[in-house]
Amino acid sequence: MTRFIALMHGPDQPGLVARASAWIYERGGTILHADQHRDGESGLFVQRLEWLPDADFDAMEVANFKLTLETMGMRVDLRRADEPGRIGVLVSKIPHCYQDLVLRWKQQEFAGDLVTVVSNHPDQAAFSQAFGLPYHHVPVTKETLLEAEAEQLRIFHEANVNLVVMARYMQILSGDFLRRLGCPVINIHHSFLPAFAGGRPYHQAHARGVKLIGATSHYATSDLDEGPIIAQDVTRVSHRHAVEDLVRKGRDLEKGVFAQAVRAHLEGRVLAYGNKTVVFD
Amino acid sequence: MTRFIALMHGPDQPGLVARASAWIYERGGTILHADQHRDGESGLFVQRLEWLPDADFDAMEVANFKLTLETMGMRVDLRRADEPGRIGVLVSKIPHCYQDLVLRWKQQEFAGDLVTVVSNHPDQAAFSQAFGLPYHHVPVTKETLLEAEAEQLRIFHEANVNLVVMARYMQILSGDFLRRLGCPVINIHHSFLPAFAGGRPYHQAHARGVKLIGATSHYATSDLDEGPIIAQDVTRVSHRHAVEDLVRKGRDLEKGVFAQAVRAHLEGRVLAYGNKTVVFD
Amino acid sequence: MTRFIALMHGPDQPGLVARASAWIYERGGTILHADQHRDGESGLFVQRLEWLPDADFDAMEVANFKLTLETMGMRVDLRRADEPGRIGVLVSKIPHCYQDLVLRWKQQEFAGDLVTVVSNHPDQAAFSQAFGLPYHHVPVTKETLLEAEAEQLRIFHEANVNLVVMARYMQILSGDFLRRLGCPVINIHHSFLPAFAGGRPYHQAHARGVKLIGATSHYATSDLDEGPIIAQDVTRVSHRHAVEDLVRKGRDLEKGVFAQAVRAHLEGRVLAYGNKTVVFD
Amino acid sequence: MTRFIALMHGPDQPGLVARASAWIYERGGTILHADQHRDGESGLFVQRLEWLPDADFDAMEVANFKLTLETMGMRVDLRRADEPGRIGVLVSKIPHCYQDLVLRWKQQEFAGDLVTVVSNHPDQAAFSQAFGLPYHHVPVTKETLLEAEAEQLRIFHEANVNLVVMARYMQILSGDFLRRLGCPVINIHHSFLPAFAGGRPYHQAHARGVKLIGATSHYATSDLDEGPIIAQDVTRVSHRHAVEDLVRKGRDLEKGVFAQAVRAHLEGRVLAYGNKTVVFD
Repeated sequence: MTRFIALMHGPDQPGLVARASAWIYERGGTILHADQHRDGESGLFVQRLEWLPDADFDAMEVANFKLTLETMGMRVDLRRADEPGRIGVLVSKIPHCYQDLVLRWKQQEFAGDLVTVVSNHPDQAAFSQAFGLPYHHVPVTKETLLEAEAEQLRIFHEANVNLVVMARYMQILSGDFLRRLGCPVINIHHSFLPAFAGGRPYHQAHARGVKLIGATSHYATSDLDEGPIIAQDVTRVSHRHAVEDLVRKGRDLEKGVFAQAVRAHLEGRVLAYGNKTVVFD
Repeated sequence: MTRFIALMHGPDQPGLVARASAWIYERGGTILHADQHRDGESGLFVQRLEWLPDADFDAMEVANFKLTLETMGMRVDLRRADEPGRIGVLVSKIPHCYQDLVLRWKQQEFAGDLVTVVSNHPDQAAFSQAFGLPYHHVPVTKETLLEAEAEQLRIFHEANVNLVVMARYMQILSGDFLRRLGCPVINIHHSFLPAFAGGRPYHQAHARGVKLIGATSHYATSDLDEGPIIAQDVTRVSHRHAVEDLVRKGRDLEKGVFAQAVRAHLEGRVLAYGNKTVVFD
Repeated sequence: MTRFIALMHGPDQPGLVARASAWIYERGGTILHADQHRDGESGLFVQRLEWLPDADFDAMEVANFKLTLETMGMRVDLRRADEPGRIGVLVSKIPHCYQDLVLRWKQQEFAGDLVTVVSNHPDQAAFSQAFGLPYHHVPVTKETLLEAEAEQLRIFHEANVNLVVMARYMQILSGDFLRRLGCPVINIHHSFLPAFAGGRPYHQAHARGVKLIGATSHYATSDLDEGPIIAQDVTRVSHRHAVEDLVRKGRDLEKGVFAQAVRAHLEGRVLAYGNKTVVFD
Repeated sequence: MTRFIALMHGPDQPGLVARASAWIYERGGTILHADQHRDGESGLFVQRLEWLPDADFDAMEVANFKLTLETMGMRVDLRRADEPGRIGVLVSKIPHCYQDLVLRWKQQEFAGDLVTVVSNHPDQAAFSQAFGLPYHHVPVTKETLLEAEAEQLRIFHEANVNLVVMARYMQILSGDFLRRLGCPVINIHHSFLPAFAGGRPYHQAHARGVKLIGATSHYATSDLDEGPIIAQDVTRVSHRHAVEDLVRKGRDLEKGVFAQAVRAHLEGRVLAYGNKTVVFD
């Protein structure tokens, strides 16, 4: 039997844990991990449950779990662990996040698979081929932006992806694209947001003389660099580091933070609400 | 009404979450935070529940919660949040952990109070007095060890402490003392255990040429430096740091790790089993 | 004989290290630590030298060292290690940075002494007295700001301070005050600048949903939160942390970063130029 | 003209900086970075100089620099920046350190080139081929150890390597091999040494219940896990992490620490003396 994972949030009220856990227990299930938290300020209750159903559990019945909790005012994201992520990748010329992602996928670090790659440059075609990944070169210019987005959508929909990741994709996705895509998009920004949003963040950081540089992975929204933050990390820099050293050190941050966000999302650990996330570790 | 906090562990079986949360719900309680985890290797199930009972809940009835879970094979540590810790301190000459603890207590960082201080040196008497803390100078020599321990026990028992913390207390506590004390003891060791156990750990670290030094807070057992670890932290060092710099940098680690362990313990976040701990964050 | 410490910066040219080190060697001195770096982008050369002169060195002669390097276009900050810092403190009601500073001073972590304390509140009077520190209560209102600044200046000048530190002083210092003070001022801001400048940074951080919070110590300038950054640090937060937890966790960051900045400044390790610093570690 | 890098250490005496910098200056050279430190306890003086000679400098003359400093009792390691490292790799089945190294090399993070790969398993042949790296499968059994080491030596000598790196190579190199190899060997150990030396360190760490796990890169010596440490890092773990999670999280540590050590070595930043290193950053 496969595991189930439920992410829930809504206004707090008594019985949310009891009702959810009773539902599982009554059907012979075993809770493997659970995490519940009440935000004292907002009165929001968040809950993650991961359970193993009884051997003869009828998987169709799980819809009733969702209904039960929704009746109590919860929004419920429910997934089966045996329906892994199907990941579409957007990448430009800068290879490190993309290549790192591919190696981690091969190391089975993700509860899911890379299934297709779209790039506005041909650079990563050979690498992709070496790992058996379909690679689609979709050039993007100001004039062809609409056609390019349509082509990208076609590729992602055809590949039936349920997650798109921007592995240092240096183009802005339109709000229309995000709506029509119909699945979450994870981006990596090379600064500790909200510091140094926008272009050339390592140059900005160097100019300001900060002592730490960072990277931020977040869900992409139509507001550039403003989406809900999933993961962040920083590393120490000094006067001995020129901008190019910040770029090099930043690559390690970006790879780590990006992979962490993608893995957490695929394991059903990221609950997004408003402009924030809860990441259950 | 006060909050209740329950720490539970035992062999996994279906229904542990359901039973505990139902018990609370049926009596009108609201779960504030909960955390459950199944260790796949050992089959151990650990659970922390923090809940607010109904306004007219009879606090005596909570013993039935304990019984209910114990019947299911759980060991249950149950506490009321309005029965805060009563902390006895052991300190020698080195002041930083002790003084830091006092300031944090005054800042109300702990769910508890410092109530009495015992030292084998008179050095911290004036500081203690300035903060209204009873200070007992109990000299310790090889010859008078037994009498000294008896006197320490008398002081701690009279002050009705439920936690003793060794704020860089440079004497070994006997197994007999620990047994008769009847409450947990938290120690701070100035290395990243198990590296550099024993004496002069900063000298050992300097001699070995490690690039990070650490500190470890753990429950004291009769096996020196071998008790269950509660908190650890490290900081970076380089060739520019002499042993005295390691000592200075280490002070910050020790203060932070020690306070973190004491705070977690007092908030009912530390579940000790075997030679390990689960720290619910 | 006392050690000398020179901080130098200016346009790069051949011979800057050779000239400085030859000057010292020819007079029988021994270099203890030195650090030189050329910024490839700006062509700026920075240099820190710490040396022990010969036993019969005439200390007056050291002015010639300064002159020699200035002739080569360097700006030179030269100090004797036996002329330690005289630190004036500004503090409001929030005690942790101030009290931590006092304890570190007593632990001799600083190459200097706290000599006087000025506060717009009476709260820290007793603590200061316990440690033998003169405490001046100078109330500040919008109407009396000018008189208050004049009084503060009088106190600091009378105490002959060469560094003023703002230990969570919740008032803005005017540009006029900073000019007339005649010595550097170090401030601690409770965010990872440039993120969350201005008021209530922990509330800002919580609202944005960042995964790390930070603290920044910088030289105060008339542009609030814009001065050259000396030290920064961050710590991890999660959804389990309410704003009050951020405040508590932030205290540890603030204390550490503030002390680090003050110590580095007093040891002649901070070279400020433009809006940035070089911190020699 | 190429840059020169000198690493020097020896008993402290006046004039070491002056003599070295004067030598460079008199020949028209410009010091780019320099770092000198006196270890107060041992009296050891360590120095790193990186300089750009005059356009018409006769590179042969640099031998005289070495001689000059050796006359003063220094041991001098002198290299030209345009004679980059030639790296031989030893790898077994576990791919992450090796593949990460290859990608970093392609990103030009190292002052040197991977030139040949030796493995006791065939697994990494395809990956190596994709990146144009010669791959030699040299099986190792207890019976054939001597022949295998002879074959490895032949390959490395033929490829003219000046550094060998063990990218999770799961075999012990004999003292005889290390002597005959004639160049340094860098290893990566998957624990925070000296904690958890020997086999299965993540299992050891899990059993002891530490709150941080680490990785250590060091020069290989005939004493397993006892060589001079070059780089270390740690990451936080909790009860939610099973051994397999430690292994996964550890991979990131290992990759980072290993790359950091290799890069520092190739840039002439690592000075090994006795059983320790100075790493100039």
